Amino acid sequence: MARIVLGIEYDGSAYAGWQWQVGIATLQNELQTALSKIANQPVTVFCAGRTDTGVHALEQVVHFDCEVKRDLQAWLTGGNSQLPDDIRITWVQYAVDDFHARYSAIARFYRYVILNRTMKSALLRTQATWCYQPLDADLMHIAAQNLIGEHDFSSYRAQGCQSKSPNRFMHFIDVYRQDDRVIIDICANAFLHHMVRNIAGVLMDIGMGKQPVSWTTELLGIKDRAQAAVTAAPHGLHLGGVFYPERYGIAKHSLFDKLPKDTRRFKW
Amino acid sequence: MARIVLGIEYDGSAYAGWQWQVGIATLQNELQTALSKIANQPVTVFCAGRTDTGVHALEQVVHFDCEVKRDLQAWLTGGNSQLPDDIRITWVQYAVDDFHARYSAIARFYRYVILNRTMKSALLRTQATWCYQPLDADLMHIAAQNLIGEHDFSSYRAQGCQSKSPNRFMHFIDVYRQDDRVIIDICANAFLHHMVRNIAGVLMDIGMGKQPVSWTTELLGIKDRAQAAVTAAPHGLHLGGVFYPERYGIAKHSLFDKLPKDTRRFKW
Repeated sequence: MARIVLGIEYDGSAYAGWQWQVGIATLQNELQTALSKIANQPVTVFCAGRTDTGVHALEQVVHFDCEVKRDLQAWLTGGNSQLPDDIRITWVQYAVDDFHARYSAIARFYRYVILNRTMKSALLRTQATWCYQPLDADLMHIAAQNLIGEHDFSSYRAQGCQSKSPNRFMHFIDVYRQDDRVIIDICANAFLHHMVRNIAGVLMDIGMGKQPVSWTTELLGIKDRAQAAVTAAPHGLHLGGVFYPERYGIAKHSLFDKLPKDTRRFKW
Repeated sequence: MARIVLGIEYDGSAYAGWQWQVGIATLQNELQTALSKIANQPVTVFCAGRTDTGVHALEQVVHFDCEVKRDLQAWLTGGNSQLPDDIRITWVQYAVDDFHARYSAIARFYRYVILNRTMKSALLRTQATWCYQPLDADLMHIAAQNLIGEHDFSSYRAQGCQSKSPNRFMHFIDVYRQDDRVIIDICANAFLHHMVRNIAGVLMDIGMGKQPVSWTTELLGIKDRAQAAVTAAPHGLHLGGVFYPERYGIAKHSLFDKLPKDTRRFKW
């Protein structure tokens, strides 16, 4: 029995999110179908973060167990040959010890991209959220800093979120402008359901001047989702990478260099 | 009678290029259909550069004449409401004097994007050309400088190219790396058929070390398309912008700031 770890990039536009569903095109369905063909037996994959409909991944991390022995290269090139071209396996390796894509992860990094100009874009229509009102990225960045550290994020979680605790530890949020785009880079130990998109919605209201910079803090105190902004659209959201303890030897995004040395899995 | 000028952005993936064809989805077909609905009469558009199948535009420039009077805003918002979301009108204005989108243009700017990494990308699959062999962008840039100025580009033109003269005036070519992408920014008075993609193919061979830096110059002398590299794929190519004399007051891409002050239409 071998445990295999994969890095996966995907364009989520055509999929009803990550999670396996009967008879519906989801990312897990597609990946399991492709890997099962290579394994010649059913394969079940576990991912670091289940993304919603329309959400993309620059680097999702998944693992699966398989009794069949295959070269690592077979999983990579064979898997890709079986996958549609909007899903790509970007790397593969054997798992070290008790590695688990979800439970071993100690931090997740997401990128939220907002196209901030008068007219919609043809080329970015599925990979950025459009906002025609001018956004003050500097104000958004200042407001975002209020969310750093451990907080009860009840005002920022979806109504149906099933997590037992509303607490999460936010490592960093950087908001910056790149030409006509405003980008939110956000990293926490883990995220509640819709948490990134709800934070993006709140920051956009602040960036438009509808709410003061202190609103991020006020909402933390109120702990009521109904008081916050609308959930920002899914297609601006990209799962950027997943951070694991050094001993697992998992490739990691350079942005994780910003994490404190003592980052560890937050118990909730 | 009014002459209207439009800026158009498009994702060329779903279209058989710019040029109007009977019963086939082309960019000109789509745009004319949309504008004719707003005008309530047939509209014929003229573009600055006819792009091939799969080629995109950050900013194509078109004009059309219309006897019906409409607010500029009606062409912009009305036109966009009639267009599919992979084509967007980004600006609109009245033409000054004898403006013609094609014949008044004195320079065109294209961007060619190469994803240079081991694995293909899911997110960039339709907007970048994939090259897995490492490219030396600095060498490519040096080789590209041999093409600056007026030359006979016979080795870089498509077999079926119908231009009377093979001469063009190259203003600048910048080749540079951005993370895992190599970008070619290229600006000439005008381009022969497939000229950008043929230059990209030649530069990629040089970047891989298959050919020396001097190869760009050698090919200029040989004047034989059959001796050059394969035509690079269309989906990495973006029409970036079109430059007109100041008096037309047409919005222009900031990259055109690099053009010499005395830029004028080259006679060929």
